[in-house]
Amino acid sequence: MTYCVGLWLRQGLVMLADTRTNAGVDHISSYSKMYTAVVPGERMLCLMAAGNLAITQAVWSRLQEGVRLDGEVHTLSSVGSMFRAAQLVGAAIRSVYDTDGEMMEKQDVRFSVSMLLGGQIAGGAMKLYLLYSAGNFIEATVDTPFLQIGEHKYGKPILDRALKHDTGLDDGVKLVLVSMDSTLRSNLTVGMPLDLLVYQAGSHHVRLQRRITEDDAYFRGLRDCWSVALRDSYRRIPDPGWL
Amino acid sequence: MTYCVGLWLRQGLVMLADTRTNAGVDHISSYSKMYTAVVPGERMLCLMAAGNLAITQAVWSRLQEGVRLDGEVHTLSSVGSMFRAAQLVGAAIRSVYDTDGEMMEKQDVRFSVSMLLGGQIAGGAMKLYLLYSAGNFIEATVDTPFLQIGEHKYGKPILDRALKHDTGLDDGVKLVLVSMDSTLRSNLTVGMPLDLLVYQAGSHHVRLQRRITEDDAYFRGLRDCWSVALRDSYRRIPDPGWL
Repeated sequence: MTYCVGLWLRQGLVMLADTRTNAGVDHISSYSKMYTAVVPGERMLCLMAAGNLAITQAVWSRLQEGVRLDGEVHTLSSVGSMFRAAQLVGAAIRSVYDTDGEMMEKQDVRFSVSMLLGGQIAGGAMKLYLLYSAGNFIEATVDTPFLQIGEHKYGKPILDRALKHDTGLDDGVKLVLVSMDSTLRSNLTVGMPLDLLVYQAGSHHVRLQRRITEDDAYFRGLRDCWSVALRDSYRRIPDPGWL
Repeated sequence: MTYCVGLWLRQGLVMLADTRTNAGVDHISSYSKMYTAVVPGERMLCLMAAGNLAITQAVWSRLQEGVRLDGEVHTLSSVGSMFRAAQLVGAAIRSVYDTDGEMMEKQDVRFSVSMLLGGQIAGGAMKLYLLYSAGNFIEATVDTPFLQIGEHKYGKPILDRALKHDTGLDDGVKLVLVSMDSTLRSNLTVGMPLDLLVYQAGSHHVRLQRRITEDDAYFRGLRDCWSVALRDSYRRIPDPGWL
């Protein structure tokens, strides 16, 4: 499995992905699930993928070679807007389905893929999209400032409670790491290392891209700090008087 | 959906179930998912159910009428041990499958049911079992002191982090309520009111059975307290120096 989460904040984007891939418990490996297309000062796009690895890699390869959209071949470096970029990723997904979908279904392999696409292209607004296997998509809004793909349930409660569109980038980074930590602890099919990307709205370049490994001092500190805080927190809840 | 959780603690059992039942979003109602069989001073058994409501009600009805196990008809009030009680519930599930399973499958309705059975019968140890649709089951242990059925992922991280077999009953109650609160906030198909049961090991009677409604002062306080604590907790995590 996979867990990827993207935050669409007033100040910018925070994107986080794990790297575990498994085809059965005895076939586990690490793959980056985060791809970027950057033209500094002009555009910054970040794509994260969950689902069948053969599909997600095929989608990314097609996007690099160019995908036909309304008669023209485009890449993420050439499309004119984030909406067109999301359509392009959707077209790439459909193109992979056209090639591989039928044979996969014959062999009872689900055509399963979902993607988060975040970024900004000069002249347009910063966007965050979630794309489905069918190539269609939804968009983050002020009311729903985060989107998740893959094994999303363990890490959702903290985001539901604490995250707002106005949350700062620093706090956003902490929250996605806490959300990921909850997932890592509860589900072995999501695994370290992690890929983190931070984008500041209006900048059109990557503010930070960081691979967080098992021995990353900050992440270890955050995990410990969060565990202690949770234990303290429930102990501070008054005892039920009726027990 | 449903969320039920049972804790198997040194001091006793804590069992919590929501009451939401839905057959589509426009067909939502409340049903208790918690059943008890108590012979005070001799036995206390508590059963909680998730899955298809027609199945879970049929299982409970059969258990009340008596189910054949190794040639004898028994109820939860007559079986000789908790292990036999779990086998009896399993036999009831299989008996419902024998009656309804084929027709359900013909109509593409999954035979989906899972149950938590906790309790103690005089002369034997206190036990907590999780039963599957096939009528087979697993048991809580010191290493795995909690079992969940239904929509379990949202509420798992807090239990993974904070719950031990040595956790006291007071703290156990707080933790299941926090775990349920996380689930209620993240998934609309799990709903209030809640049914809570607390059993003290060796007592063979119910220590507490409580229906927790929307306006339960303790639960409202706990929800507020936990929300504030979570927000404070992540704010106390140091900012990443590298951002």
